[in-house]
Amino acid sequence: MILEGIVTTLSPSGAVNIAPMGPRVEADLRRFQLRPFPTSQTYRNLKAHGEGVLHVSDDVLLLARAALGPVEPLPPLQPASHVRGRVLCDACRYYEFRVQSIDESEERVRIEAEVVHAQRLRDFFGFNRAKHAVVEAAILATRTEFLPLDDIEAEYRKFAVVVEKTGGAQEREAFALLRQHVERVRRRAGDVSPPREDVSLPREDE
Amino acid sequence: MILEGIVTTLSPSGAVNIAPMGPRVEADLRRFQLRPFPTSQTYRNLKAHGEGVLHVSDDVLLLARAALGPVEPLPPLQPASHVRGRVLCDACRYYEFRVQSIDESEERVRIEAEVVHAQRLRDFFGFNRAKHAVVEAAILATRTEFLPLDDIEAEYRKFAVVVEKTGGAQEREAFALLRQHVERVRRRAGDVSPPREDVSLPREDE
Repeated sequence: MILEGIVTTLSPSGAVNIAPMGPRVEADLRRFQLRPFPTSQTYRNLKAHGEGVLHVSDDVLLLARAALGPVEPLPPLQPASHVRGRVLCDACRYYEFRVQSIDESEERVRIEAEVVHAQRLRDFFGFNRAKHAVVEAAILATRTEFLPLDDIEAEYRKFAVVVEKTGGAQEREAFALLRQHVERVRRRAGDVSPPREDVSLPREDE
Repeated sequence: MILEGIVTTLSPSGAVNIAPMGPRVEADLRRFQLRPFPTSQTYRNLKAHGEGVLHVSDDVLLLARAALGPVEPLPPLQPASHVRGRVLCDACRYYEFRVQSIDESEERVRIEAEVVHAQRLRDFFGFNRAKHAVVEAAILATRTEFLPLDDIEAEYRKFAVVVEKTGGAQEREAFALLRQHVERVRRRAGDVSPPREDVSLPREDE
């Protein structure tokens, strides 16, 4: 099972990185596998210091912001208790982890991690079509470099209906952010060399 | 916010009805609004006896089965503690409720309900694209009467990729059930009067 979660790591200088990640997890979540791109900050941070925190969250606004780039200002954070890392205070649950192994033999790095501490903070909302439309929209927003923009925009038109009909303020704000990003990409699609800000925001894993 | 949940009600004779429902909820879930179709068993049961149980669940196999018709055999159930009703033992959380008012002035009935007892049983998995693809597939499966089959099948082809890539055994089984249903509808689409079994399985709300 792939869990669409959020991973926080610290750089050697202590900067907090917040990244949407889809680890492969077992039901008990005692260990999991991350597959970040080797260009990602999460990968660089975990290679330098093999500890971090995986979060289960239904906060799609944070997820959308993190998918589009560095999250500024940072959301409320607290120090992890068993690893050098930071916990998102608004997460539903979190899993402090230690890297067991890093396999760099393929294009996508494979990081095996062991959970050393787990805690629940609050309940996950449950199934909500708007929240999930934002998750799918965030994934597409990070693929504007290699997916046809027409296809992405067609999906976004469907998402817009679902967000309006089944979501709340958080889902609408998150979707608006993602839609603005895609609109910026569209406006610049005619340029020979699109500005780096629009092409350098890959999601850190698939 | 619309929560895609599961509602159990009892008929006057004590038969358990399990129905996917998308109530409009507030964040604290102390009250919510159901909008069942007047032809639904949930509506009939709640009109006869205004009590039931709303569940937050990530069990998409149960959700798919309930979307396609009566669930047989019944999943594990336990008596509710504060109302005449049944609790799904495998739910994540549940909300025993009492109907406050029923408004039948429009096509879709509006039922206002007050939660009289809430309990957590286990954690919701979190965001998983396969689970959500099944939720969307279940909604489409109940709309085969009035949505173009070509469109539904096109969506199902996309769902199939996501289920295979991000889901587990439960998600694959749930999606297979829904796909078989759509395939049955397709095979019979040429008939002037499709067999009732394929057109009488509406989801009980939108």
